[in-house]
Amino acid sequence: MQPHILLIYLYIMITTDILIIGAGPTGLFAVFEAGLLKMKCHIIDALPQPGGQLAELYPKKPIFDIPGYPSVNAGELVDNLMEQIKQFQPGFTLGETAVSYTKVDDEWFEVVTNKGTVHRAKAIAIAGGLGTFEPRKPTMDNVADYEEKGLEYFVKEPEHFRNKKVVIAGGGDSALDWSVFLSNVASEVTLIHRRNEFRGALDSVEKVQDLKNQGKIKLITPAEVTAIKGDGKVEAITVEIDGQEAFDIETDYFIPLFGLTPKLGEIAQWGLNIEKNAIVVNNALDYQTNIEGIYAIGDINTYPGKLKLILCGFHEATLMCQSVYNRLNPGKKFVLKYTTVSGVDGFDGSRKEAEKAVVKKID
Amino acid sequence: MQPHILLIYLYIMITTDILIIGAGPTGLFAVFEAGLLKMKCHIIDALPQPGGQLAELYPKKPIFDIPGYPSVNAGELVDNLMEQIKQFQPGFTLGETAVSYTKVDDEWFEVVTNKGTVHRAKAIAIAGGLGTFEPRKPTMDNVADYEEKGLEYFVKEPEHFRNKKVVIAGGGDSALDWSVFLSNVASEVTLIHRRNEFRGALDSVEKVQDLKNQGKIKLITPAEVTAIKGDGKVEAITVEIDGQEAFDIETDYFIPLFGLTPKLGEIAQWGLNIEKNAIVVNNALDYQTNIEGIYAIGDINTYPGKLKLILCGFHEATLMCQSVYNRLNPGKKFVLKYTTVSGVDGFDGSRKEAEKAVVKKID
Repeated sequence: MQPHILLIYLYIMITTDILIIGAGPTGLFAVFEAGLLKMKCHIIDALPQPGGQLAELYPKKPIFDIPGYPSVNAGELVDNLMEQIKQFQPGFTLGETAVSYTKVDDEWFEVVTNKGTVHRAKAIAIAGGLGTFEPRKPTMDNVADYEEKGLEYFVKEPEHFRNKKVVIAGGGDSALDWSVFLSNVASEVTLIHRRNEFRGALDSVEKVQDLKNQGKIKLITPAEVTAIKGDGKVEAITVEIDGQEAFDIETDYFIPLFGLTPKLGEIAQWGLNIEKNAIVVNNALDYQTNIEGIYAIGDINTYPGKLKLILCGFHEATLMCQSVYNRLNPGKKFVLKYTTVSGVDGFDGSRKEAEKAVVKKID
Repeated sequence: MQPHILLIYLYIMITTDILIIGAGPTGLFAVFEAGLLKMKCHIIDALPQPGGQLAELYPKKPIFDIPGYPSVNAGELVDNLMEQIKQFQPGFTLGETAVSYTKVDDEWFEVVTNKGTVHRAKAIAIAGGLGTFEPRKPTMDNVADYEEKGLEYFVKEPEHFRNKKVVIAGGGDSALDWSVFLSNVASEVTLIHRRNEFRGALDSVEKVQDLKNQGKIKLITPAEVTAIKGDGKVEAITVEIDGQEAFDIETDYFIPLFGLTPKLGEIAQWGLNIEKNAIVVNNALDYQTNIEGIYAIGDINTYPGKLKLILCGFHEATLMCQSVYNRLNPGKKFVLKYTTVSGVDGFDGSRKEAEKAVVKKID
């Protein structure tokens, strides 16, 4: 290998202490607990933004069982967790899925994503929730030809759609909300659904109705997209109304939002003990899997009495971080202090601490 | 036993599903998780208010490691937990400590406090934190004669001190803060400390200085209270200034605030497995102790890898409640649902739920 190639290789390889797979609440909070122990984290997630199902499936819905929050919107909880961890500067590889892992040497694991991004870490924490969210795809034979060439399953970067023609298909909250959002960005938004009725938050349905009345969203129902056309990229789609009349619509993008299905994915092939789609861990100690140095935390793991609750994921993440610390610092005695007493030192040089008591004369 | 005696007995006996010993954050959150499973809780605590050390020791200090809270004041966290559980109408026996337990029959435990209050419950969860907070007492021989007869270690009900003369001793936050508070309630507040310097929040020290300047607090330093006098109740105390000059001050109340020491207390005699002042539990399953039906959760328990963190107590409380539910409902299949989906039904008839999706035509 020539020196300059080696340099480039080192440059693009991401290295960290703990590689977290899954940016849901459990994975995010792990960054905080690792940070308290001076360990850095990097997170891989298949979705285009952090937060897992909270951000993707129900950001506006309340959760009632987060301790200390009589009610908190899922999106707000994600925002708060991001705020809580930002001082520990986590890295993110978003919109990619972890495919393979190898043990490079005694110290390092290497994980490569479906897009070839290479990560090296001293420990792996799988915080994959229900699994990788994979989009339900349209049933046309040629969908693979157009994926990321105008056929998009997520709106990763709304600006990509500025002044473009967009066709969205679907009848749920995602289809409604992105139609509303992109109506202010794209030059033309067409929403196609196989029924006349939409299912979603009342507010979202009413917004789409308003925008349709204003001519800002074209609505075609009950209808289905039956074909994608174009030379190397999406140029048009065919719509069939009520199973009869069919015609083409010119468009730059086709965004079918038919929901997401969680899949354990490639991780199922890593040699981990798996029971009923969940990874068996040692809950009596540190939530480690059968492979030393690989942990599973949150909804993706299983053990006797397991409950798939966010608050349990927080606990598991914390004990995982302690275990990694002990593995990486053998023999080093760790003394736990309350954050109220010790404060929190960020990797960005920030410090959070309780106001100090003064010793002061009164006279 | 005569019928009317039996009636009175039943009336004063407290019955519940889970008796929680300790009203700290872990004990409080257990009420919520029990409530989701339709089980009622009652909480015993030695302190006069709920919240444990958060409310008693550092209510105004921030905690940085509660998941989802970049920072939360301890007192605010307690308030939020009380708000979160109020729909499940927990009972409280405050200012009392659990002394003995007996297993009455296959179904019921009975727990009696130091004041003779009788509680019956189907399960016991010890959430005692560092232990029962016992006040450090003055060293005079006759303190026991005056306890609750003018000699008070806690300010349980500030109104008791209205228009009374009060002497407070101590040099920390409690002494400073109660001197400030009672200066608006009592007819006379005298603060005595063995040093000229006080140790506490700057704000508290400055307030006492102001009130002293205004003549609303009398300050005597460096001085010590060396005797309590009175016939059956506190009528005066003797102060010795700088180990020399001594004189008496007439007062209705003497409140020495010398700090609290946590003690495991009578629970140490219950036959529980105890290691280093903590109760050994089965962390591989449900945080149950060696005595069936008695659990220990939060800082008071120990197991391999145990961390004394509030977030761990939340998890332990949750798994404890599930275990109690399974014990009380053998063979009944419990299906866990996210609160976002199921909502929360309070015992007070309240209901919290996410806004329902609508199915609505757009035309």
